[in-house]
Amino acid sequence: MRQLLLSTSTVHGTNYLDYAETHVRAFFGSSVKRVLFVPFALHDRDAYAAKARERFERLGYGCDALHTAAAAGAATAQQAVASAEAVFVGGGNTFRLLDTLQRLELIEPLRRRVQGGMPYMGASAGSNLACPTIMTTNDMPIVQPRSFDALGLVPFQINPHYLDPEPNSKHMGETREQRIREYHEQNQRSVVGLREGGILLREGDRLQLIGQSGARVFRRGGEPVEFRPGDDLSGLLGSQSC
Amino acid sequence: MRQLLLSTSTVHGTNYLDYAETHVRAFFGSSVKRVLFVPFALHDRDAYAAKARERFERLGYGCDALHTAAAAGAATAQQAVASAEAVFVGGGNTFRLLDTLQRLELIEPLRRRVQGGMPYMGASAGSNLACPTIMTTNDMPIVQPRSFDALGLVPFQINPHYLDPEPNSKHMGETREQRIREYHEQNQRSVVGLREGGILLREGDRLQLIGQSGARVFRRGGEPVEFRPGDDLSGLLGSQSC
Repeated sequence: MRQLLLSTSTVHGTNYLDYAETHVRAFFGSSVKRVLFVPFALHDRDAYAAKARERFERLGYGCDALHTAAAAGAATAQQAVASAEAVFVGGGNTFRLLDTLQRLELIEPLRRRVQGGMPYMGASAGSNLACPTIMTTNDMPIVQPRSFDALGLVPFQINPHYLDPEPNSKHMGETREQRIREYHEQNQRSVVGLREGGILLREGDRLQLIGQSGARVFRRGGEPVEFRPGDDLSGLLGSQSC
Repeated sequence: MRQLLLSTSTVHGTNYLDYAETHVRAFFGSSVKRVLFVPFALHDRDAYAAKARERFERLGYGCDALHTAAAAGAATAQQAVASAEAVFVGGGNTFRLLDTLQRLELIEPLRRRVQGGMPYMGASAGSNLACPTIMTTNDMPIVQPRSFDALGLVPFQINPHYLDPEPNSKHMGETREQRIREYHEQNQRSVVGLREGGILLREGDRLQLIGQSGARVFRRGGEPVEFRPGDDLSGLLGSQSC
């Protein structure tokens, strides 16, 4: 299995996917010609698909959008997944993304294709979707999916856009670390707090942190551990971690 | 119906419920002798209940905790709700709170009691619970409730701990206003962004913003409107607002 999981599509002061460009090229390589873009996390799918298409064409890839296939019905959308060379699931609202994929009965077909070797790239909500559940999303629950279970391509949870506590904050809402601690009061799986600019690259049984930012990994009952770009995180793929 | 809905239990630099003390006293008055505390939003219910009890005793009220009744089964918990003089639902994780109340079959009994006149006080997650759904919570979805539908004591949504955008932020995650806009891409109801220190007081068909902070009210398709403590928000109770 191959996955490229981004914390964010864009880092401050740059344009869409710019910071990740070399990693995206290296991940899809020259064998992939067209990427299937999944725009369901945003409301305006046409605009989102146009933005992704423009960006992928500049990277040298063709880009089809799954919502145009879905407009002809769930079966056509399933066919688009079945015949895709590679997939990119864009960021936005994770609940809306999962709900739409569940309604189109696309979870199982997508999972099977990725398990069969199709490269999967996700950003933000698209990275949440690669996890066993969406329980470590930051998003507002604006729609109710039938289940919080997601693709389960990796056996751990990701918290994208991970934010360190602000030392001088006067805000009383929970910090991100407190929220992840609450997750571990109810659940077992390890959580990778992936800071903006951080990317997880999974190639088979190897998992590496790449990109330009570190990650903070939370295990139930243990102290959080810091990782830097270049570090190996393959231990998280073992069943003992989740 | 009577409700006192707090954005937060605590404002920075003060102790538990201190900032709201005079409003809590005025709300429960002298006819209420004991308050039923609902600690289900936090993991350590005993510690939470002890904290609430100490605080309410200093306010001059007795305080029973619903989880001790629930330990004897759902029927006993339902009985505790049936015989309560007043209820206070504490903050924490809204998904955990709603899930626990659903499992104990307490949603309908609680709703009926409040509709019948029992005073309802909520803080943070407890204020989310008073809304038609929990779709405008800030919390992480650490458990999956059977439904996002909540008590529906008010016909609008509350976003507690409302935060204005940070003008100099380099973070690319959605601002609170963007999240509420996403809510309105999928849903109709007005959303009160209640800043920390802000309190909604509902007495029958009258709704007032009190406390020490303002609120920003978002209507689908309209520009957000600012309100200050003392302002009347009764218009939000009308059906046209949701």
